[in-house]
This record gives sequence, C-alpha cells and structure tokens, in this order.
Amino acid sequence: MSLATTVDSGHPSAPPADDALPARLGLALEDFLRERPHAELAPELAEEVRALVLGGGKRVRPTFAWWGWRAAGGAPRGQAAETALRALVALELLQACALVHDDVMDRSTTRRGRPAAHRAFATRHRRARWAGDSRHYGDCAAILVGDLALAWADDALVGAGLDPAALRRAWRPWQAMRTEMMAGQHLDLVATARREESLEETLRVARFKTAAYTVERPLHLGAALADAPAALVEALRAFGRDVGVAFQLRDDLLGVFGDVAVTGKPVGDDLREGKRTPLVATALGLARAAGRERDVRLLRDCLGGPIDEETVARVRALLVELGAVAAIEERIGALTARGLQALEGVAVEPVARERLVRLAAEATARKY
Amino acid sequence: MSLATTVDSGHPSAPPADDALPARLGLALEDFLRERPHAELAPELAEEVRALVLGGGKRVRPTFAWWGWRAAGGAPRGQAAETALRALVALELLQACALVHDDVMDRSTTRRGRPAAHRAFATRHRRARWAGDSRHYGDCAAILVGDLALAWADDALVGAGLDPAALRRAWRPWQAMRTEMMAGQHLDLVATARREESLEETLRVARFKTAAYTVERPLHLGAALADAPAALVEALRAFGRDVGVAFQLRDDLLGVFGDVAVTGKPVGDDLREGKRTPLVATALGLARAAGRERDVRLLRDCLGGPIDEETVARVRALLVELGAVAAIEERIGALTARGLQALEGVAVEPVARERLVRLAAEATARKY
Repeated sequence: MSLATTVDSGHPSAPPADDALPARLGLALEDFLRERPHAELAPELAEEVRALVLGGGKRVRPTFAWWGWRAAGGAPRGQAAETALRALVALELLQACALVHDDVMDRSTTRRGRPAAHRAFATRHRRARWAGDSRHYGDCAAILVGDLALAWADDALVGAGLDPAALRRAWRPWQAMRTEMMAGQHLDLVATARREESLEETLRVARFKTAAYTVERPLHLGAALADAPAALVEALRAFGRDVGVAFQLRDDLLGVFGDVAVTGKPVGDDLREGKRTPLVATALGLARAAGRERDVRLLRDCLGGPIDEETVARVRALLVELGAVAAIEERIGALTARGLQALEGVAVEPVARERLVRLAAEATARKY
Repeated sequence: MSLATTVDSGHPSAPPADDALPARLGLALEDFLRERPHAELAPELAEEVRALVLGGGKRVRPTFAWWGWRAAGGAPRGQAAETALRALVALELLQACALVHDDVMDRSTTRRGRPAAHRAFATRHRRARWAGDSRHYGDCAAILVGDLALAWADDALVGAGLDPAALRRAWRPWQAMRTEMMAGQHLDLVATARREESLEETLRVARFKTAAYTVERPLHLGAALADAPAALVEALRAFGRDVGVAFQLRDDLLGVFGDVAVTGKPVGDDLREGKRTPLVATALGLARAAGRERDVRLLRDCLGGPIDEETVARVRALLVELGAVAAIEERIGALTARGLQALEGVAVEPVARERLVRLAAEATARKY
C-alpha cells in the first residue's frame, strides 16, 4: 500500500526501536514531513505542524502502539518493524491536531514551552499590523493547522507501506480512536458548560478524551497491525482503559500541583479555566457530604472562573484537606492494579509484557 | 478493502447513477452515516454533520468525480459503480468540514438555509444558560463538528470497499486535494489580512481554494479510481483547473449580485466581510488605472469592512460601472473555453464528454 516510489530500508544505522523509541519515531516523523506533497503551498501551516511534532512530546501514543505491536509478536527490527514505525507516525500527527484545536478551545497560551499555535499566529498578525482582529486570525490559522495535521495523520497511516490486510485491520481501531477522541473533547466541552459536578460524568470524559485515545486504541492499533488474536486485543484494551484513566487522573493532579518544567503548561490553568475533573468532582462530593457549605461555594466559584492566584492556592490546599487528592491517588492505584491484572493469563511476548508494566508505572506514578 | 462485513449490493431498485446522481449520492451518504461506529458518543456532533450533508448541497464535487470515473471508462452500474459511489461520499464529508470551519472563520450566520453550525451551538448554549461565553462554545463545538467530518471523510474512502490498487491510486489525488484545500483557505485568510489587492494573488486563492478542490482533484480522483491513462488524467485536470476558477469567479459574482434563494447566503456578505476576490481586485485595478481616487478609496473602505447597506449598494454599482463585472464575465468565458479545449484530442467516453461539457456550462453560466 506504499505511496513511496522507492523501497525504504529505514534507518539501518539507528539503534533498535525497542531501546530508542522516541528517537526512532522522531526520525520517522522527519521522513514523513520531508516528503509532504504540496506542503509548500502553505509553508506557515506546515512549519507549525513540524515545529509542534518535532519540538517535544513524549511520544506516549506511538510508544503504547509499538508495545501493542511487540506484545502480539510484531518483529523488533527489519522491514515489518520499519513499516510499523512509519504507520505510528499517524498517532503523533493526530495528537498535533488535538493539541492545536484544544489550545484554541481552552484559550491556552503555551504548549510544549512555545506559544500555542493560535497565539503565535495572532502575534504575527499583530506585529505585521494586518487587517482585522489578531486573535480571530490566530484562531483561524490554528484551525487550519489542526485540520492539516489531521489529514496528514491519515496520509501517514495509508502511506506507510502496510500490506492491504494490515491496513484494513489497523483502520478499525484508527477509525474508532478518531471518533472517540472528538467525542471525548465534546463531552469535556459540555461538562464544563453544564457545570458538571458528577464524578461519573467527569470519569466518562477521562475515559474517552484520554484513556481510549491515549492508551487503549494505540495498543489496539499496534496489536491489529501484528494480527493479534481477539483475546490478546481484549486484554490489551482492558489494560489500556484502566491505565489510561489513571494516566488522566495523574495528569489532572499534575495540572494542579505539578511543576511547569514537567508539564510545559502553567500550573493551575485547569483550575483557572474551570475544568471539570474527577479531582474537583471528588472534592465537591466530599465537601457536600461533610456539609461544608463554604468549601462547596469556594469550589463552585473556582469552577466558574476566572479566579485569582490567592484563590488558586486556597483551592489547592482544600483539595488536599478534603481528602480528594488521597481519594484520587487511591483510584489511580486501584485502576493501575486492575489494568495490570488484565494482562495476566494471556500470552504476551515477554519483553513487551515487562515494558507495558513499566509504562503503566511511569504513566501513573507521582512526579512531584 | 471494505470494512463492511456483508457484501452490499447497493440500491438495485434505484435509478442508474448517470441520471440520478444527487439522489444516489444522498442514499450512499445515508448508508455511510447510518453505520458510523461510536457516533452515539457524540450525538450532537454527528447530528450536525448529518443535517449538513443531507440537508442540501448540489453534490458538485462527487458529480465531477463521477464523470471523471465515467470519462475513464468506469462502469455506469453494477458492483464497481456502487463501490465508486460509496467512495465519493468522502468528498461531501470533506466539504462539510470545509464549510463548518469556514463559517467559523468568516463568522457566517447561515449555511444552506439553516443557522451555521457555530451559531446553532451558540444558541443552544445561550438558551440552556450554560456557563461561559456562548459564542466561544459555538466555535469550539463547530471545530469538533468539522474535525469529525474530516475524519469520517477518510473513513468513507478507506471503507468504501475499493480493491487495494484502486485505493492506492485514489489516495494520491485525495492527499493532494486535502492539503491544497487547507492551503487555499490559508491563502484566503492571509490575503484578507494583508489587504491583498493584486489580481494575481486573488486568482491563486481561487485556484487552490476552489478550482483544485472542487473540480480538478475530484475529476482526478474519479479518473484514478477507473485507472485512467496519464494523458486523460492531465486533460481532465487542465479542464478542471480552468472550469474551477471560472466557477469561483461566477460564485463571487453571485455573492455580490445573486439571490439569497439561489446562494443560501445573504447577498453582499463577501463585500461586508472584506473578502479579497478577483472581482474586487479587478475593480481596484481599473479605478487606479483611470485615476479615480474616490472610487479607489470607496473600494478600500469596503475591503476594510464592516460597511453599511448603502455602501454595499454603491460598491455594487461601481463594480458594474468600472467594467469589472464585464471583465470577470469575459474571463469566465475565456477560462471555460480553454477548459473545454483541453478535453479535445483525448479519448473520453462519449456520454461523459457530453456531461462534462454541460457541467462546465452550468457551473459557469449566469444565474441572475
């Protein structure tokens, strides 16, 4: 199925992907972006996609997908492995779309230590003294950057050089993942607008906006590329759902208590934006159950945002004091344990099993 | 390459596609939308995509693609024709993405006689008295509607049931078309921001934003599905470039002088929005050449927008008086003639040739 006119032998001098996955994925991304037909028609959009995908990111999604591939017996090196790596580039491009559009929606100012795309384009507009509203111009350009990344994501998968049966197998999780991701973003948007306070609903957002899209479906995609049996696919997906939700819960904690150097985003933004997270929903539930009306009001004020720095600090302390942080930590632990259990009793390539266990720990462990 | 689990025999009782293309494409769209996995996770987004693609539209792009298929000897009926029709659904979904995102960018109020997606979501937000800014909520939801339509467009092409070689052939024009479309929208955005006045640059926008995306690449896609020889592909693309630009020039005239009942958009919006079109660029060039400083200022005021109804009327009269309308009419005629000439001297299936000639006339003829 390759659209390439020459047979690509990959990067033979590069280290094996198992041991150098982010670097190998970076090379595959560079190869893909170098060959983009017609990208010269929109150099600013293409450059923004390029800067975003090559300028950072932990390659979480293609890493899970790689270990899904390896778990199902996919080769660690050689032509099939190179083709799989090329296919996984699609996940980073899809993520670029999600980030750029998400930053417009959340009105975020920075991303991966750089100005968010919509801000960079707005600044360019303002400095050039162009006509019209700079902020709107930035939003428009960022919408197009995200669209381009989304189209290129599909180009990467279709053009990776997979054999037709592998592409057909991969398209099912890929199709599901894209719809689930957009549905998850919409659930999040609606939850914020409706001032959603139920833990259940905020967990549903985490399930689709993050877990399905970040862990479950990437694992599914990798396993599908390697033609995994149904039982293994199910086990990997169950692992991915639980570890994925745990990963989002950890990310929510980092968003409130973490370090800007780790997260690349100003700490407290989630609180300032009135983001509905299981963390805040848990705190609200605990405050209500304890009849602490003043705390309930404070948390609701916070969710109504914008709030000042002093209020951010008070809410942060309150989340600990009410026991919400402890409850979320406990949930993270329980989900991670159940996720790991899903991998028991099913045949998984040993190296991959070890790595998946380690990834689950890394994705969910305390970082502050 | 089908993702469908059963062999679809199409709609055997339906009339042949040659004679009932919009209806047959409508049925294929309904089939596709009925089977969307996971769409139930985002019912509001899915419903907006559905309402948009089933609620109108002249099916211009899949119609050109169908006649590209037929021009290259593609069957008018039977299994291969049904598969081709299913694949062409992708073009309507891509167009849905373009329209929804374009309406956010242009701040348009209506589309196909209904409120534009971002306005419909903003209204819902306002009526429900949800938290936050209604307009921003509407924009966010519309970004997601467009993303979903774009992802589904690729799903439609990959899942149509094409054989692997046909999918590989189709992906080249499809890949080019998506990047060109987004580049064209960006060129348009920049032209407006930079107060672009050159005819050449506004024609470049028309070339990529419309011609490539509406006529040239759809024809290319249809011809590629039918495995057309290179000479025929080149002839169809040359035809499509010229007829496509002529179509955009006609659309620009309709946007200024047309009837809301024909266009589905309030007349004069392009002028009110300060849109850079070859029509206005031509008028500016003529006014400058004639040393008519007051007219140059009026046209520049208009492009700086927003302008009132009286100014819209004055600009409209001025475009005629300066000879800009006549010049654009002449250009439309010349492009259409050259486009038709490109089809001479190359073997085209006779029924398809006749229809392409008719389509060129319909797409470019005066309608007011």
